[in-house]
Parts: sequence; structure tokens; C-alpha cells
Amino acid sequence: MRDGVQITLSIDAMGGDRGPAAVVAGIARSASKNPALDFIVHGNGAELEKLVRKRKVLRDRVEIRDVPGVVTMHDKPSQAMRRTDTSMRSAIDAVKDGEAQACVSCGNTGALMATSMIRLRKLDGVNRPAIACLWPSRNPQGFNVMLDVGADIRADARDLLQYAMMGASYARNGLGLETPRVGLLNVGTEEHKGRAELKEANELIENASDIGGYAFKGFVEGGDIPGDRVDVIVTDGFTGNIALKTGEGTAKLVGDLLKEAFKATPLSRIAALLALTSLKRLQKRIDPRRVNGGVFLGLRGTVVKSHGSADATGVSAAIKLAYELSASGFTDRLAARVASAVATSQNDGTS
Amino acid sequence: MRDGVQITLSIDAMGGDRGPAAVVAGIARSASKNPALDFIVHGNGAELEKLVRKRKVLRDRVEIRDVPGVVTMHDKPSQAMRRTDTSMRSAIDAVKDGEAQACVSCGNTGALMATSMIRLRKLDGVNRPAIACLWPSRNPQGFNVMLDVGADIRADARDLLQYAMMGASYARNGLGLETPRVGLLNVGTEEHKGRAELKEANELIENASDIGGYAFKGFVEGGDIPGDRVDVIVTDGFTGNIALKTGEGTAKLVGDLLKEAFKATPLSRIAALLALTSLKRLQKRIDPRRVNGGVFLGLRGTVVKSHGSADATGVSAAIKLAYELSASGFTDRLAARVASAVATSQNDGTS
Repeated sequence: MRDGVQITLSIDAMGGDRGPAAVVAGIARSASKNPALDFIVHGNGAELEKLVRKRKVLRDRVEIRDVPGVVTMHDKPSQAMRRTDTSMRSAIDAVKDGEAQACVSCGNTGALMATSMIRLRKLDGVNRPAIACLWPSRNPQGFNVMLDVGADIRADARDLLQYAMMGASYARNGLGLETPRVGLLNVGTEEHKGRAELKEANELIENASDIGGYAFKGFVEGGDIPGDRVDVIVTDGFTGNIALKTGEGTAKLVGDLLKEAFKATPLSRIAALLALTSLKRLQKRIDPRRVNGGVFLGLRGTVVKSHGSADATGVSAAIKLAYELSASGFTDRLAARVASAVATSQNDGTS
Repeated sequence: MRDGVQITLSIDAMGGDRGPAAVVAGIARSASKNPALDFIVHGNGAELEKLVRKRKVLRDRVEIRDVPGVVTMHDKPSQAMRRTDTSMRSAIDAVKDGEAQACVSCGNTGALMATSMIRLRKLDGVNRPAIACLWPSRNPQGFNVMLDVGADIRADARDLLQYAMMGASYARNGLGLETPRVGLLNVGTEEHKGRAELKEANELIENASDIGGYAFKGFVEGGDIPGDRVDVIVTDGFTGNIALKTGEGTAKLVGDLLKEAFKATPLSRIAALLALTSLKRLQKRIDPRRVNGGVFLGLRGTVVKSHGSADATGVSAAIKLAYELSASGFTDRLAARVASAVATSQNDGTS
């Protein structure tokens, strides 16, 4: 680090669908936009040397760690987390050892979470860590937070309460919302609908709103994920992951059909030219690459999971998110919030 | 009925967000497009008289049943299904009594399903009926089938197998696909991911593909719902309902942002005019009102649930769907398919 505000990020360059070239291109893009960033990059040393040398902007700002092992998308998390020779493990360890403030990886989500859990460990009081994503919405801040989107396929009422606390903290630090509005995802907004654990979670989250610093709005539905009723949507990792991928797939389908529509006739091709600026602004607003990065919450360290298929734009967005969270001291704030919630519930138990 | 091909539909005119006016407007729209349709309409007699009299196209084609009770969106299904004085009950009974070939309602989904189950009863061999919806997709037929989207919040492996059988039958009769491709919704396409009941269902559905007349493609993810990997997506009603509403909400957000983009500058307003035809075609393709209508599968009769907020276009789309299913003899075909599956599994059990 060159001075006090300098942030070092630890980047797993392997394991993404597009290989290390896309990752290094994303690093270069971020480096040229943000002089406060340095990098430790983990993966095949020779390949990385070659890629980094080509980018002038990366001179003296990248340290390469030559690590032979790669976790693939098909590796089982339980096996991958035991390997000590992988770029993923090396990237996480740099955060554990205090060399970097946050880790970014495009690799296998399950393996990344499992390795993060054994290397960084969970925050005191957290049972299941979660992955939070940002979602384009009708709210003034342009995005909502949804969690869990895939860290764990099950969550009981207490887990959902922790997700509410962590999601609210993320919205406060990541989106600048003083008192985020939190909703619990269900199939209906009426209280008699839905699963038993959701009714229990509904009460727990309501009762903890003071400690959590959020305003609880009760049950919300799938349509509220891109809506403006709440800022944070709480759900289990199975449902959240399917909602995330359904939303992405639908937005992409609409975008592709729109492109087709503009190619349909000579007149519509002229129209596309005239509306270019407005359409680009729209595309930027809904482009999943721009909000790329699932944040792992509930660990002693910040890990950002980039899309496996991320290109340079996507990787750069994930790096930006990791930088912002590091600069805001997010992990410490989240830890403090969770600790105070644990203390309060223990006091409740004894008094 | 005027002759052999004439179809009579039973319409619940009450309980939708926009009231009977929108329902009668939808009936009129369908009636003017399709001379083979007659209607029995259930609800407030005086109000319906007035609305129907205004539409010339409905003369001699609508029978009004004056029923005082209305099921609201907030009524509990378990209570609503016990009432004998509602337009919903009356509309379903007309199918039960053979006066109409199918029923359409914009009312409370849970109440409509509960009432349909006690009045029409389930097909032999069906444990949990399901609601199937059509979803805009990249497939040549333009739509995929997804079920269950909200009949029941839980489903075990045997229920998911029945959904696969019923969904495939619906895709064959509703979308004209000889051998529909079926996928089971999960958080990952690898076999080691996901919940235990999904692994079991995966095997059951695979083994029954010959009897069901479908090609099973294994696990699919949220992104495949609007995709082209499969034609039928099988899931439980909790997940399916959230995916459906997330997709609808996302498509609507993108559509609204697109409209804003075209209003942003004078140039983009001109562009919108030039691209009008292409954009309208796109809007029609992704407009949820055009694919309005969840079909209840697994009952001794066809019930189509229209969106609660449906306008005339939406109601007319639901009526069209009910007509097509009635004209193709879908309920009988589905019953035959389910019965053959039951017989086969019983033979398996004794041999």
C-alpha cells in the first residue's frame, strides 16, 4: 500500500468461465479508474505474468502468487475446500493473513463459500453465512438487496433473522440507507399464507427491528424484489437463488427481444440510432454485469463472488464493490451489529 | 349451445380487483373474436344485466346467474370454500353439472383451488393438484409451461412426478408439442446440489418418461424458465409462485424503464414513433396479460385462474385459453394419462 487510503484486493484469477484473461482485463479496468487500488492475483504464474505485463496501468500494482491448483465449476465444495494448492484458497488466505482487505473470485460458488468458512470462519453469533446480491429496483437508490441467494439451501427462522440483520447492515453501508426497509419473501402478503418457519421468522424479525436498525414491512412477494416497497428482501438460499436467476434470465430475454425488434425493419434501425443514448442508459441500468458481485455476509472478512461468466466489465464491477465495502469498514460494522444482537438476545434469555 | 363445436364457459364475474365491468368487457372481446363461445356469468344479477345489455355482441350468448356472495382477496380459502352463496362456487358448479366445459375466475387463488377441489374433486391418482402457467421463452412455440405456481406450498417427490406428467400433457395439448422436454427446477445443474426430495424426484421423473410421453432433461435453473433447454419446468408451489412473480415484476420494470428511456429526449421520442410497430410487437410478446391464465391441473374439470388485476385484455386471454383447452378435450386426455401412470405404478408394485 502506498498510503493510508490505499486498498489491496486479493483476486482469484482462475475458475471463471472465461479464464484469467477476462479477470486481468477487469483488474486493469478497475486499476485505471481507481488509483487507490492494489492487487494480489492468484493463479498460474506464467500465464498471469504474460497477461499483467501487457497492461501498463498494472505496473507496480499487482503482486502475482503462483498457485498450481484450480477449482472447477464441477468440483464438489466439500472436496475443494480441503485442497491447499488452489488459487481460491490462496486468495482467501491473503485476506485471513491481513495482506488484503477483501477477496474477489469468479469461481465455483459452493467451493468459495465452503473454503471461506473454514479459512476466515464465521462471525460470532452467525449460524449460516449468506450471499447478498444487488437487484435493479424502482427505489431511489436504484437497487435492492436480496439475501440469501445461494449460500445455503435451507434456513430456519433464526437464520432468516440473521439475514435481516446482515442485509440491513449491508444496505446501510453499501447503499447509504440509514434505516433500510426489510421484507420477508413469501407467496402471499396475508399472514395466513406460507410456511410455518416464515410465520416464526416474521415475528422474530419484527421484534428485532430496533437492534437491527431497520424498518420491518412484513411479508413481500416476488414482484417486490424489483419494486419499491422495501430495500432488503430476506429469503432462504434455494428460493433466493431461483428468484435471482429467473429475474436475470427474464431481463436478458427482454433485452434480446428488444435488440431483435430494433433490427426488424429499416425504420426501426434508424430509430435505434436516434435513441442510442437513451437505450444505452437503460441497458446500463439493467445490465446484470453492472451489479455483478454477491457479497458473502457473516464471515470474518469480505469475500465477493463474481458471476462465473463475468467479462472484464463484470469483474470490474465486482472489484468496485469489494473496494467500496473495504473502504467503508463494512466487515467490522457488520460484526459489531451482529455482536450487539447476540448480546441482547442473551440478556433476554437470562432476564 | 348452437351446435356441436359450440363451447360454453362458466365465468365468475366477481372477486377480481377491477370488478365485473372488466370481466364483462373481456367476455365481449372474446365473444366478438370467437363465434363458437357462449357464457354463463355468475355474480350480482342487476349489475351484470346492465353491463351485458350494453354489449350487442353478447345478445343471446350470455346467461346470467344472480348470486349474492363474493369471495374477496382477503378471505381464507378454508372458510370461502364452505360458503354456498358465492359467484365462485356457482361458477365451478356449472362445470361440475356439465352445463359448461370450463370455468374462468379472477378471484382469490387459494379459495378458487379449495372450492374446485371439493366441488370438482381430484382425478384418481392425483395427490396435489397444481397451477400451471405459460411463460414467454426463447423456444419456437414462444412459451414454456411452469408448474406448480401456487396451488400448494409444499410438494414431495411423488407430487413433483405428477406435476411432470400433468405439465407434459398440458404442453402437448396446449402448445402442440409431441414430446415435451421436462426439467426439474433446482439451484444447480450438478447432481450433488439441492434438496433431498429433488434428488428423489429426479429419479422418479426420469423413470416415468416413457409413460408420461416426455423427454426428461434433469435439473434446470431459474435462468431456464424463459430459456430454450426445456418446455416444461417442474417445481413446488412456493418456489414457482415466487419465480413467477419475480419474472413478471422484472419484465414490468424493464418495460417501464424502456418507456422512460423513450421519453427522455426529443430524439428518443422521434425514435419511439419510428420503432412503434416493432416495439408493439415486442410488448405483445412479453405482455403478461397475453399469457394470462393459470390452469388448474389434476381436477375433474378445467378451471382457469385469471390474474386478480386482469383488465379486458387479460380476461379475454384467460377465456381464450379455457376455450382452447375445452375444444381439445384436454381434461379427458390428462385424466387418461394420469390413470395409465397409476395403473403402471400399481403393476410395478405387484409384479
